[in-house]
Amino acid sequence: MRVHPSTLAEHILRADSRSIARACTLVENRAPGSVDLLKSLFPHTGRAFTLGITGAPGAGKSTLTSALVTELRRRAARVAVIAVDPSSPFTGGAVLGDRIRMLQHHADPGVFIRSMATRGALGGLAPSTHDLALVLDAAGFEWILIETVGVGQDEVDVARLAGATAVVVCPGAGDDVQAIKAGILEIASVLVINKADQPGANQLERDLSEWHVPIVRTVATTGEGIAALLEQVHKARASGPNGEAQWILRLRAMYAERILRNLDPARLAEAARLVSGRQADPYTIIEEWLNI
Amino acid sequence: MRVHPSTLAEHILRADSRSIARACTLVENRAPGSVDLLKSLFPHTGRAFTLGITGAPGAGKSTLTSALVTELRRRAARVAVIAVDPSSPFTGGAVLGDRIRMLQHHADPGVFIRSMATRGALGGLAPSTHDLALVLDAAGFEWILIETVGVGQDEVDVARLAGATAVVVCPGAGDDVQAIKAGILEIASVLVINKADQPGANQLERDLSEWHVPIVRTVATTGEGIAALLEQVHKARASGPNGEAQWILRLRAMYAERILRNLDPARLAEAARLVSGRQADPYTIIEEWLNI
Repeated sequence: MRVHPSTLAEHILRADSRSIARACTLVENRAPGSVDLLKSLFPHTGRAFTLGITGAPGAGKSTLTSALVTELRRRAARVAVIAVDPSSPFTGGAVLGDRIRMLQHHADPGVFIRSMATRGALGGLAPSTHDLALVLDAAGFEWILIETVGVGQDEVDVARLAGATAVVVCPGAGDDVQAIKAGILEIASVLVINKADQPGANQLERDLSEWHVPIVRTVATTGEGIAALLEQVHKARASGPNGEAQWILRLRAMYAERILRNLDPARLAEAARLVSGRQADPYTIIEEWLNI
Repeated sequence: MRVHPSTLAEHILRADSRSIARACTLVENRAPGSVDLLKSLFPHTGRAFTLGITGAPGAGKSTLTSALVTELRRRAARVAVIAVDPSSPFTGGAVLGDRIRMLQHHADPGVFIRSMATRGALGGLAPSTHDLALVLDAAGFEWILIETVGVGQDEVDVARLAGATAVVVCPGAGDDVQAIKAGILEIASVLVINKADQPGANQLERDLSEWHVPIVRTVATTGEGIAALLEQVHKARASGPNGEAQWILRLRAMYAERILRNLDPARLAEAARLVSGRQADPYTIIEEWLNI
């Protein structure tokens, strides 16, 4: 059964869960009509706040995300979660205990959970994640939590499109501090030392304090520190980049993704054949494509 | 002092170290003339084999890379190392012991070491890493080792442009297996269990064996298993993707990067202003840019 984009949009604006899920699938797959749908939803966006939650595997991002959902629900906010982390219990990974913790949220109509399966997607993960966030924004979710793993370009890009980003670390991860320093610090609005009841938390806080990013200590399994984390996120929200600066990054990412989708496969294959045989050089070919 | 691209190209083809280093800087900065330089070098490329070496921080990638360099030099091959991993001793990170191990290679004229500082670069890291590899290929290095950290899109992209990729893990990393499964397995030609003399190596090998990727056990600090690793890399090289398939990915990445560099900043800023004020939607604007 096909539904006209404008009808689907109306259902989404009324926060119908099945329609939202369906729109997410359309948008994630770049299905025909998905751009029209996004166009009709766009005027209804701009109210949600997107919070990126990232860090190495094992830092407790998912448990922290779950605890944030609980706290935000207590404050009567509607919350959406986009889980990009493939090891997240939201996406079906992780251990049983974590998954059980999530079940409460799945049963709550004020919470919408969506996992992304598009790592390695054309043009990067960020554009489709951002489109998904716009759908959820239009559906009236006041908070959109985006959980990603790692220190790669994807995470940096997703974080740049978010209103604020919490980078989660935990004591005992040792080598990870190097990775955090290099890749992730530039995007952190807040540094979260999770599992702060474990040995090494004080040393980790000392190590991290030189970077002049607000630090919050949490124990996500008990909810300790979650309210303080939300405080810091609110501060970051107030002092963060304005909409225009973010839209510059977003438009760039959207444009690149769209251009790659439009590239003619036959033309590309022929070019690859010529270049791999050293009958042409790739730089000249790209200039031809650009009409330089 | 400016040097004409064709003169610089001649110096590179004669493997002059200073000229190679200079070309790397030009290419990495996308300096004027760098595309002309790459065009003139391109016909002299196609002989080098690029091996990606990736994995989580602490797995011992840098020590493994160093051990590979030692083994390849013993076999009289010229070797270049591109270190993208910011925690690598090649780039100045890591602990003193690792850095001392590297010093022997820095003094060897048959070894060229270059660190990349462009994480977060426009259009991703992969296109400029690949251009650097072409310079080193033209300069006659038979092996180009590219060391990256993490499980992000950058690493996947860099690996896709490489001829083969070794994913390095070590016992005791625990949670990392989740991340390896999700993000990195698709790109692994060889799985390396480094620090294989430590407890847990057998269990790790059992866990990894279900993925049907060749596994090699190494102790990079002693050189144990490095010859066996090279064997596996040679096999991967023989059965890996052909040049044409790789060039399809490379051309796409190069094209996207180039298009983003060409985007007019003033036009972009004006679009961001309109979109953030909800006076226009981003999807229609991008269609205008594409002349759809």
